[in-house]
Amino acid sequence: MEENSRYSELNIEGRNAVLEAFRAGKTIDKLYILEGCKDGPIQSILREAKKSKDTMIKFVAKERLDQISETGRHQGVVAQIAAYEYAEVEDILAIAKEKGEAPFLILLDGIEDPHNLGAIIRTANQVGAHGVIIPKNRAVGLTATVAKTSAGALNYTPVAKVTNLSQTMKDLKKEGLWFVCADMSGDTMYRTNLTGPIGLVIGNEGNGVSRLVKENCDFTASIPMKGQIDSLNASVAMGVLSYEILRQRMNAELKK
Amino acid sequence: MEENSRYSELNIEGRNAVLEAFRAGKTIDKLYILEGCKDGPIQSILREAKKSKDTMIKFVAKERLDQISETGRHQGVVAQIAAYEYAEVEDILAIAKEKGEAPFLILLDGIEDPHNLGAIIRTANQVGAHGVIIPKNRAVGLTATVAKTSAGALNYTPVAKVTNLSQTMKDLKKEGLWFVCADMSGDTMYRTNLTGPIGLVIGNEGNGVSRLVKENCDFTASIPMKGQIDSLNASVAMGVLSYEILRQRMNAELKK
Repeated sequence: MEENSRYSELNIEGRNAVLEAFRAGKTIDKLYILEGCKDGPIQSILREAKKSKDTMIKFVAKERLDQISETGRHQGVVAQIAAYEYAEVEDILAIAKEKGEAPFLILLDGIEDPHNLGAIIRTANQVGAHGVIIPKNRAVGLTATVAKTSAGALNYTPVAKVTNLSQTMKDLKKEGLWFVCADMSGDTMYRTNLTGPIGLVIGNEGNGVSRLVKENCDFTASIPMKGQIDSLNASVAMGVLSYEILRQRMNAELKK
Repeated sequence: MEENSRYSELNIEGRNAVLEAFRAGKTIDKLYILEGCKDGPIQSILREAKKSKDTMIKFVAKERLDQISETGRHQGVVAQIAAYEYAEVEDILAIAKEKGEAPFLILLDGIEDPHNLGAIIRTANQVGAHGVIIPKNRAVGLTATVAKTSAGALNYTPVAKVTNLSQTMKDLKKEGLWFVCADMSGDTMYRTNLTGPIGLVIGNEGNGVSRLVKENCDFTASIPMKGQIDSLNASVAMGVLSYEILRQRMNAELKK
């Protein structure tokens, strides 16, 4: 695959640079701070970071910070900038409304691999989903690798980042959405009605959908598994389920 | 993702070691030889390599060979060992026959990304395909990364490597197989009959299905694309199409 310099990873390092980035309104996915570091400038950075719902704060040991640092001059702080801007959940609903379509959202409960996230955003675009929602913690954000793997889809399909996925689901239910959870134990997707305003929930690569999020799902749908192993790659599972949603939507349209 | 030492990449370097590997019957995916190197030992290695249908021979400049080499002591030759053994196309057909099922094969026309190949083998297993066929040239083989990404599926789903994909398709047609090519311009997959003995052809990540292979396909099937970009990730496209084949097969079974 070709390298694209436009998509180089973006770290900002050092106290002044990081504070400036926050104050300039840059979207910072992750903020790494040296453990035990509590002086004035670091406190100012932390105050700014806590104002932003996009930023995950991590306190790390010196060895880890040295690894993350690209310049070697981090002064105890490294910020990872998002390669793309995040949207708001309301923006995504507005797009569906504008198109006169029932909302179709993809919710990712902790996708960690940037190649999976990129491929999922790409598929979300092709399947006609109105947007993707990801959590702030324990998940990859819109890094340069994600942007590249999305093959341009990030320019068209909005991605919102939320602090609490379960809470967002509760809010969206008030807007009329139903949530379907990809799960081995559910009814097969072919026998589940997947039309109407829907949010498709895809779990983490290793651990699947977390308990709290699963409890907020209205039903589960499983992909038939004829093989000897126990799951599919997360982006493939998302593709298969979201195309089943599209197929049922297209059928429903034809019957109108 | 966790590293697994069982899946470390395997290179064999140096003239004696490589010659021994061939004579011991090891499966060598790629043989790199220093350009212009024509002495006796190299000629012996080349003779062995040409006997094997699994080995792609590449003549490379010294700088490239130095890069590929892990030990720095390559003596003008590096061999890349397959992490898993290849099956024969006949083995794959025999599995279908044994199960009393119409053959369902996945043919990959030049997948280059090992993560895609691994995810495809994983999906092939889950969708009940009897095997995967890959070409010898311009494609990734069964490397350690592929084995790891397949999440164990390589232990169950056979992969055959062939010299000429078009010729293999011609041979398989005599066995009653039909070939469907994933293509943007085909009829939508929902309206294409995908039951019966079938080979699903997936193209290269960047260039799609090559002309000769496409000419040997009996029909094309397209995935609906509602988005602004022009394609899906190769392993996602394979997943969506192969699950449509499974859905139609399951429906056909129900109607019996």
